[in-house]
Amino acid sequence: MTDGFIANFIDDCRAIVGAAHVLTDPVDTAPYLTDWRGRFTGRARAVVSPASTVEVAALVRLCAQHRVPVVPQGGRTGLVLGSVPDDSGTALLLSLRRLNRVRALDAVNRTITVDAGCILQHVQEAAAAENMLFPLSLAAEGSCTIGGNLATNAGGTGVLRYGNTRELCLGLEVVTAQGEVWDGLRGLRKDNTGYDLRDLYIGAEGTLGIITGAVLKLFPQPKASITALVGLCSPGDALQLLQLAESHCGPTLTGYELMSDVCLRLVATHFPALPQPFPGRYPEYALLELSSHESERHGVALLEGAIERALEAGIAQDAVVATSIAQSRALWAIREHIPLAQAAAGKNIKHDVSLPVSRIADFIDATDALLAAAYPGVQVVCFGHLGDGNLHYNIAPPEGIAHDDFLAEQAPVNRIVHDSVAAFGGSISAEHGVGALKRDELARYKPRVELDLMRALKAALDPLGIMNPGKIL
Amino acid sequence: MTDGFIANFIDDCRAIVGAAHVLTDPVDTAPYLTDWRGRFTGRARAVVSPASTVEVAALVRLCAQHRVPVVPQGGRTGLVLGSVPDDSGTALLLSLRRLNRVRALDAVNRTITVDAGCILQHVQEAAAAENMLFPLSLAAEGSCTIGGNLATNAGGTGVLRYGNTRELCLGLEVVTAQGEVWDGLRGLRKDNTGYDLRDLYIGAEGTLGIITGAVLKLFPQPKASITALVGLCSPGDALQLLQLAESHCGPTLTGYELMSDVCLRLVATHFPALPQPFPGRYPEYALLELSSHESERHGVALLEGAIERALEAGIAQDAVVATSIAQSRALWAIREHIPLAQAAAGKNIKHDVSLPVSRIADFIDATDALLAAAYPGVQVVCFGHLGDGNLHYNIAPPEGIAHDDFLAEQAPVNRIVHDSVAAFGGSISAEHGVGALKRDELARYKPRVELDLMRALKAALDPLGIMNPGKIL
Repeated sequence: MTDGFIANFIDDCRAIVGAAHVLTDPVDTAPYLTDWRGRFTGRARAVVSPASTVEVAALVRLCAQHRVPVVPQGGRTGLVLGSVPDDSGTALLLSLRRLNRVRALDAVNRTITVDAGCILQHVQEAAAAENMLFPLSLAAEGSCTIGGNLATNAGGTGVLRYGNTRELCLGLEVVTAQGEVWDGLRGLRKDNTGYDLRDLYIGAEGTLGIITGAVLKLFPQPKASITALVGLCSPGDALQLLQLAESHCGPTLTGYELMSDVCLRLVATHFPALPQPFPGRYPEYALLELSSHESERHGVALLEGAIERALEAGIAQDAVVATSIAQSRALWAIREHIPLAQAAAGKNIKHDVSLPVSRIADFIDATDALLAAAYPGVQVVCFGHLGDGNLHYNIAPPEGIAHDDFLAEQAPVNRIVHDSVAAFGGSISAEHGVGALKRDELARYKPRVELDLMRALKAALDPLGIMNPGKIL
Repeated sequence: MTDGFIANFIDDCRAIVGAAHVLTDPVDTAPYLTDWRGRFTGRARAVVSPASTVEVAALVRLCAQHRVPVVPQGGRTGLVLGSVPDDSGTALLLSLRRLNRVRALDAVNRTITVDAGCILQHVQEAAAAENMLFPLSLAAEGSCTIGGNLATNAGGTGVLRYGNTRELCLGLEVVTAQGEVWDGLRGLRKDNTGYDLRDLYIGAEGTLGIITGAVLKLFPQPKASITALVGLCSPGDALQLLQLAESHCGPTLTGYELMSDVCLRLVATHFPALPQPFPGRYPEYALLELSSHESERHGVALLEGAIERALEAGIAQDAVVATSIAQSRALWAIREHIPLAQAAAGKNIKHDVSLPVSRIADFIDATDALLAAAYPGVQVVCFGHLGDGNLHYNIAPPEGIAHDDFLAEQAPVNRIVHDSVAAFGGSISAEHGVGALKRDELARYKPRVELDLMRALKAALDPLGIMNPGKIL
């Protein structure tokens, strides 16, 4: 493309959003072009920040006219290189962050309608201000946008009870690859009128269209949340405790996290100020959260009842139930500091996998053994949302080997872990998505029929191939 | 097509499924060709009953080769002419009822894997035998198949807590329009690896492919279910009671049905043996169901607590809480006899609509008034799943006008009701689907952009247009 074309194209962008919202100077565009973990920096023709759905649609029409690739971006907290452009420099980076209004809150319908660029935490706060709960909760909630959460079908710590982002969304507004606006902002619990476009755009990582708005479900705010940490002998016992707690507590059980002792030692090493929960140590720990709509007393009694049974049955070894908000925060802090402790320890090879819940213990045993055989002394840092079958199964080098050197083993380590995931009927991306990072892995593990169907959908909805190219497929 | 082609085609079908499972004699095929309510009888080249996914795939490949339309059918209990062929006589009717195995039950993963032709009630029973709950529950459960439930994204009485069929499904096996088998039978709570094919096939009413198997979610069986009936002054009070009960009971509130006094009078007239719940009468009634994982005592106390508050606040006028299973069944029997009482009274004009929950009372007031103005003395029989915003809003003739004569008014009555639904942001099909019956209504009310997207998906996945033609689009 000629310089003249580029100048005209940029001028057309400026005419749509205003000159102040079209960035082309590398100093200005740099913060948008490097991924969250700092592993990759792409290039873009320009970074454009529209302020409305109408402006997004006009930009996409302009890009379709000139066959310019469009890379939508929210809070840029994704972990799979889904929201940064490649290094060709041909793409227009379209930041949604100026679309940040809460459009409406309907307390009786229990819905909130928001722009895609709203920060997740602001959506949580808008709900809480009306004494309601928007239950999506994850580490990046202070920076990530709800549009990004929808585009990646984000998970987090509340999935056991409330589902993934997909299950929390009733309706969408989308700018199609043709630059048309699909108004699917319906706040309906039941609507069986044709194909489920909503769920097709959710999780499509901007490759089929751009989500610009959403109607989200809200829930009555529970009266109390109770947290407990339980010391266990094995992942198998963690599964037994999950079964017992689900049966005993029913839907009041809202969170169930697993952490190995390796994780807790890592946290203790790098954050020695954090209190240790038990005088002794156990191979595994489960973090339970219960939400009661009745009272704190009810919640504590219910959770203690489940744990007492587990202790009597020998499933649990020791337990602490938080009796104050400060104690509860301290227990969650251990869980939340695992990724930070890992980062402090050095780079590692991360996996975000899911398994049938029933296969988790066998998967951990088998995969630990395969890795130990291939890399004697290797450290597996395994934690995650056990209630959803989702493990963050991260691999650090054996003692004495530099973290950076070990990263060279990424491909063979991925092969061991992902082959094992496939053998146990799991998924190589539980909650992070595919992006550019896992595209080749996806092509390797997906059945051919499924890839063909996905390609047919991509060709049908984005025939020019301009929507976030190189991601997923 | 020539007689020779037809003979060869039928022979090829026989070679795939065995001669005994290919019906061509009108006496044999008749039971498959008339819709559940007896309003329409189609014609088919043959009725074929495959016994396996492999046989379904072979039949679809044969049909694709010869451009023969395929109409999949489960229990034939659909209400929108979705599973019967048109009267052209060109289609192959493919009955899934011989695919009726429970393939696996994983108690720890809380999943059951079933053939699409399994009767819903059998799936419920297979779960209950392991002390687990498959919560999909609807009037046709003794006859309908899970494949039909998935194809129409069926709703029912448990949606408030457990969601529609869509939310109860983790994975699918589908025979594509090309006769290939997509094995998406994954039992994973989290899986973000590409486009959501599962939810595209769910609710597509067999127009994109044929669902042959599914992995379904199970839940811990509650210890007790408590039912209550509450007398109310208005739909607005029913909404206030719903709010109060949801806040007070949280996720233990598993059902919330609305019935008008017109409904109860109709039931009393046609089923005089059913006991009347109250000595007096109220304009509206709410039926509440609460499920406790703790104990019956806990459930009763919680539900009574919510109702007491509602009585004190003047929201509720009177209430009865069932103290035995027999009493609970008697309360549900009133609700379940409404459609039967309607059928006994004569034909009527039915609507299955959904609204934002917050707009329900206004919708009922406004639409009742529009109908009364157009048809003085008209009877509105309104009941439904208020917790999901789903009303069965059925219209019977004024006194003195024959039911059959009133049916001639179907089109203008539909226009009044569906225009009102659209004005209040609702859907013209909440849980029954579109089929052939509501196809023209869909085309009228859907935004053009949405119809274009749906047509693009249909063309992408079924380019020959052989999958259940004339349904939805």
